[in-house]
Amino acid sequence: MNFTQLSATELEKKKRELEESYRSFQAKKLSLNMARGKPGADQLDLSNEMLGILTPESDLHASTGDDCRNYGLAGGLPELRTILAQMMDVDAGHVVLGGNSSLSMMFDTVSLGMTQGFAGCEPWGRQSHLKFLCPSPGYDRHFAVTEYFGFDLVTVKMTSEGPDMDAVEEAVKDPSVKGMWCVPKYSNPTGATYSDETVRRLAALKPAAKDFRIFYDNAYCVHDLTDTPDRLLSLWAECEKAGTLEHVFFFASTSKITFPGAGVAAMACGDENLKAIRRRDSFRTIGPDKIGELRHLRFLKDFDGVRAQMAKHRALVAPKFRAVEEKLGKELSGKGVASWSNPNGGYFISVDVLPGCAKRVVQLCAEAGVKLTGAGATFPYGKDPEDANIRVAPTYPPIGELEQAMEVFCIAVQLAAVEKLLG
Amino acid sequence: MNFTQLSATELEKKKRELEESYRSFQAKKLSLNMARGKPGADQLDLSNEMLGILTPESDLHASTGDDCRNYGLAGGLPELRTILAQMMDVDAGHVVLGGNSSLSMMFDTVSLGMTQGFAGCEPWGRQSHLKFLCPSPGYDRHFAVTEYFGFDLVTVKMTSEGPDMDAVEEAVKDPSVKGMWCVPKYSNPTGATYSDETVRRLAALKPAAKDFRIFYDNAYCVHDLTDTPDRLLSLWAECEKAGTLEHVFFFASTSKITFPGAGVAAMACGDENLKAIRRRDSFRTIGPDKIGELRHLRFLKDFDGVRAQMAKHRALVAPKFRAVEEKLGKELSGKGVASWSNPNGGYFISVDVLPGCAKRVVQLCAEAGVKLTGAGATFPYGKDPEDANIRVAPTYPPIGELEQAMEVFCIAVQLAAVEKLLG
Repeated sequence: MNFTQLSATELEKKKRELEESYRSFQAKKLSLNMARGKPGADQLDLSNEMLGILTPESDLHASTGDDCRNYGLAGGLPELRTILAQMMDVDAGHVVLGGNSSLSMMFDTVSLGMTQGFAGCEPWGRQSHLKFLCPSPGYDRHFAVTEYFGFDLVTVKMTSEGPDMDAVEEAVKDPSVKGMWCVPKYSNPTGATYSDETVRRLAALKPAAKDFRIFYDNAYCVHDLTDTPDRLLSLWAECEKAGTLEHVFFFASTSKITFPGAGVAAMACGDENLKAIRRRDSFRTIGPDKIGELRHLRFLKDFDGVRAQMAKHRALVAPKFRAVEEKLGKELSGKGVASWSNPNGGYFISVDVLPGCAKRVVQLCAEAGVKLTGAGATFPYGKDPEDANIRVAPTYPPIGELEQAMEVFCIAVQLAAVEKLLG
Repeated sequence: MNFTQLSATELEKKKRELEESYRSFQAKKLSLNMARGKPGADQLDLSNEMLGILTPESDLHASTGDDCRNYGLAGGLPELRTILAQMMDVDAGHVVLGGNSSLSMMFDTVSLGMTQGFAGCEPWGRQSHLKFLCPSPGYDRHFAVTEYFGFDLVTVKMTSEGPDMDAVEEAVKDPSVKGMWCVPKYSNPTGATYSDETVRRLAALKPAAKDFRIFYDNAYCVHDLTDTPDRLLSLWAECEKAGTLEHVFFFASTSKITFPGAGVAAMACGDENLKAIRRRDSFRTIGPDKIGELRHLRFLKDFDGVRAQMAKHRALVAPKFRAVEEKLGKELSGKGVASWSNPNGGYFISVDVLPGCAKRVVQLCAEAGVKLTGAGATFPYGKDPEDANIRVAPTYPPIGELEQAMEVFCIAVQLAAVEKLLG
């Protein structure tokens, strides 16, 4: 029963039915949240062991001999750098550890470009008409960082293989285009992983701006949810071959491996950029939180430890993704009112509703006690030109609440579609 | 026996004696470090209890209901903000918690001025010929931050009551003077605490630049070492009265209370500045390290807990200060070759040797295995116009090593003086 083929009378009837179901959910006074990619409490419990892993009796020295409690050891713990390097698929000698937030490392790197500049160019803050490429739908917080610093946000279409590389190659001919946001694996929100060709074309980019920089946020690098995980070609290796390593800043964190509130973030980059980052840090700090790093190292131990931890996350998260996909399939399949992703990992399911309906769906859900990411949030300036994309984040609510929220969501999608089709 | 009154022959004799003592220390192949204001291992042990204070069984919720393990709670734990507010002597509602480094918060605040500007003015990064006031001798890392961002560093003389306020009041008539570094209590390195008059004159400043900002680093606010601690008038209260709260950013941290490598930093400021800081943080992070904050809160409990902890520090640190002062008194008193501070707290003893001798003293010490802060480090650009000031940091070495290092130091001071007097 495809809604787009129904008569006005049939649609009116459908509308009354949907409104009735909707009101019955409203009567339940729900308060459910599928807005942000936030781990559930059960996922956080997986790392509770880390809380007690250091005691007053522990050896608190790094392998370098440094006392982790004191100032110093600018680069952080070498073994933890190696783990993060393996996660990011980069050279461990080029990794810098940060605080608990990779977003802060990205923000600070844009800020570095603003005040010091890259590649010997004038600082971005002294140039004008700066632009940044935003593959969309994408991550709202990425876009917001460059908006904060005054960049014009340029939308590039996301495809199932990553950003539309024809458009990217064309765009970087403009010397005012200074960079590009990327989430290469299980992209936020579509779940797409960049194809080998996309990675190779990124490495081969010949931007007009010498200070063009790709911000490559591998937030979901180890966040597989199926037996057929996506494989991402190493951009580091491709850039090394192409001689373009200075074009890229790589990022990742343990936020969704251990604790979002107390993880360890990391970045990596080529020699020249690394020199600038380390120089900045030598002015900015007398050393990172090495006790937090030591807890992570003793808890995760090595990259195999990360994989083992992620298998435990998968056991908790995959059923939630399946529940969402099953509900979408059961309630919306064949009705012509929505399409959605079935990602092999990451934190989101991306739903495209009928054009012009996304805001209405989010509103209907909100008025029935189900909070979603704001419609449009996945596009620059929060404006989805089609008003069609909705990001669903299944991880935070317990599965029972999630199923209830999805029932409301599916009714809202249909109701918004019927309203639209009735004009 | 004042060296300046000795004959050339007497000086030659003195020189030979000193050289002999010096060589005997060189033969010992010492390796001692009095370079940085770093707590000793015994001081770090005072906070080891904090390592085990959270366990997998602990309640990990903030008083706000937030799970400290997860994203969120942008401002951090309210009760910890209150403790830091009491330390800084500011209003708790205006405190922002940071990561483990107050230096990073200062750096980021200068960076904020560079990219966004203050008081609606053009960002500093788009203005030219920026200047920053540096009371000297002062803290090298402060000066370095503003040098990094391209400010001209303007030396203002430190007196026993704080910066020479006549000079400051004159300097701020220049609209290109954008700010000033301050360590108001037990100043690094002289140990001076700002007098009530200095604080009042700071609050009453009428800078020509609307975007003039005082960076008020209360690093040693609770770091008393005697029964007659210095008292610092509240700049917050004075600025409130004078209507100049927007002129000041206040900073402090628990680095020298708990762990330098894993403490909690904080800043405070007036409404408008606070709005800008919070806005920036809303783009920069999804929440602070609340687990680290929770450990601090459960360990310190309240401001009384901070005071109790500082009494324990004092018991370890005060004897080291006394040892240095005693050695200086015994070896150098009445010789006319040096004067030094006897601070009531903080982390440093400031020694003034004969003009033109500081570099030589540091070199002689280094060549006998005793590392000191580089001569000149306490002045802008690392250049002491008198080449006279040396910063001694007594906390890090065990007391036996410290006494040995001071013997070398006292010989070096005398030897350099004799060399100089002999011309």
